[in-house]
Amino acid sequence: MGKPMSKNLLKAGFKLVVHDVVPQPVEELVKAGAEKGASPKDVASRCKIIITMLPDGPEVEQVVMGPDGVLEGAAPGSLVIDMSSISPMIAQKVAAACEAKGVDFLDAPVSGGEPKAIHGTLAIMVGGKKEVFDRAVPVLERMGSYVTHTGPVGAGNVTKLANQIMVACNIAAMGEALVLATKAGLDPEIVFEAVKGGLAGSTVLNFKAPMVIARDFHPGFRIRLHHKDLRNALAAAESLQVPLPLTSQVQQMLISLLGEGKGELDHSAIVQFTEKLAQVEVKKPN
Amino acid sequence: MGKPMSKNLLKAGFKLVVHDVVPQPVEELVKAGAEKGASPKDVASRCKIIITMLPDGPEVEQVVMGPDGVLEGAAPGSLVIDMSSISPMIAQKVAAACEAKGVDFLDAPVSGGEPKAIHGTLAIMVGGKKEVFDRAVPVLERMGSYVTHTGPVGAGNVTKLANQIMVACNIAAMGEALVLATKAGLDPEIVFEAVKGGLAGSTVLNFKAPMVIARDFHPGFRIRLHHKDLRNALAAAESLQVPLPLTSQVQQMLISLLGEGKGELDHSAIVQFTEKLAQVEVKKPN
Repeated sequence: MGKPMSKNLLKAGFKLVVHDVVPQPVEELVKAGAEKGASPKDVASRCKIIITMLPDGPEVEQVVMGPDGVLEGAAPGSLVIDMSSISPMIAQKVAAACEAKGVDFLDAPVSGGEPKAIHGTLAIMVGGKKEVFDRAVPVLERMGSYVTHTGPVGAGNVTKLANQIMVACNIAAMGEALVLATKAGLDPEIVFEAVKGGLAGSTVLNFKAPMVIARDFHPGFRIRLHHKDLRNALAAAESLQVPLPLTSQVQQMLISLLGEGKGELDHSAIVQFTEKLAQVEVKKPN
Repeated sequence: MGKPMSKNLLKAGFKLVVHDVVPQPVEELVKAGAEKGASPKDVASRCKIIITMLPDGPEVEQVVMGPDGVLEGAAPGSLVIDMSSISPMIAQKVAAACEAKGVDFLDAPVSGGEPKAIHGTLAIMVGGKKEVFDRAVPVLERMGSYVTHTGPVGAGNVTKLANQIMVACNIAAMGEALVLATKAGLDPEIVFEAVKGGLAGSTVLNFKAPMVIARDFHPGFRIRLHHKDLRNALAAAESLQVPLPLTSQVQQMLISLLGEGKGELDHSAIVQFTEKLAQVEVKKPN
């Protein structure tokens, strides 16, 4: 995600210093006009705004607060924008470490996946102080077409987790509905067409039901990453004493699919959990 | 539902004989031009097409197969269309009883609630033989704007149950997402606005989140009826050996809400289950 997002910033005329543990995307960005940073510390010492895009919270802590990290290089008054999808509690912890050094922080996770990252049309949900958000908007709106300030630090990730809860549960619900209909002998495509215009309609149903019926589980958004997001959602919910029975149940489905080696499939493969239980595949009848 | 649906048939010029255990709607329809039938048997003996709209499967069995029922009056070659939302197995049982007397049968449950019944814009999902469906279309399309043949007898109700599974689970998922966000201190309306355009978007989210945030649980579609639909879904699934963990979980939520005397609230009140667990209400912060 970081590479296409960086390319959109370069296209918009921003000067970029880039760093990654993997050399290839850095080389590609340097060819496109970016400078190479030796470490997060080096990047931070050469930039006013430092953007991180990492797999999960522990990586963000390490890159921002660890040795050779962002906070060893960042000048007071600079701004760290973490665009990873992480636990809101870790976002708050990293924000506090930044604040102690006079560095501003926003958590700004994105939704939309690689296609929208390439086209600069991501949804970006931002947590932090309003005046800090306002400073970041000219940068963020080059990467996303829908940039929303949702509350204080952590609120970006809470919003993203709320989003991921609905997406995962809506996929699982679609799976149960289509598995039942298919095992009852119906053509799932006819069921899809019959219900999509009513109250059962959803973006998940429109995009994912045709993939499932075509048995196309090419990602898209991976089971492995959705499992990470629900883990963060359940951890955040636990810390707030919010029991989430449905989300929990879907997380068990994801764990089962990971155990079957299906972590790299599109999250629409959540339906395969119910398919396996019911011994049927959602596809057109022979 | 039967009254507004009948009115649309009268408006379209069909001759109607009507019967109900409650006198008021019958009187209103008689004033609008219908004739009064003394019993289901009497109605059936005077009509070529007999339409039933009843609370659940046992009532359909009684009205069609019971004493003074439809099959005591219906001539061979007539057509019974059951538009109730019932178990597909009962639909098949009633169809078999009809067939034994040379009477055709369709199961044709509807979706859209009273407003769409009044406007004649219901979605109608129809199970039965294709040639019987074709005979019914001129009648059905006066009551619905979206009439789909989804398979053999029972397929109408299987499709309706698939619809109801997705609606109930999507509401419950929305509830978990908004409860988490609200307890984390966010404004649920901002979360709603931030996510509704993405993959978490759904008809449920668009229609029900604003109701929940406004604390308006006026039905709409009642908890009590959605509980009945999920009971039929789980019974159908059990008979097909299809385990439905998510649907089951949502049914437990509905049972809990029924126990609290909330059966007459709109099904968006499913969120109140999670709200109670989390001790928070999804509404704008003070």
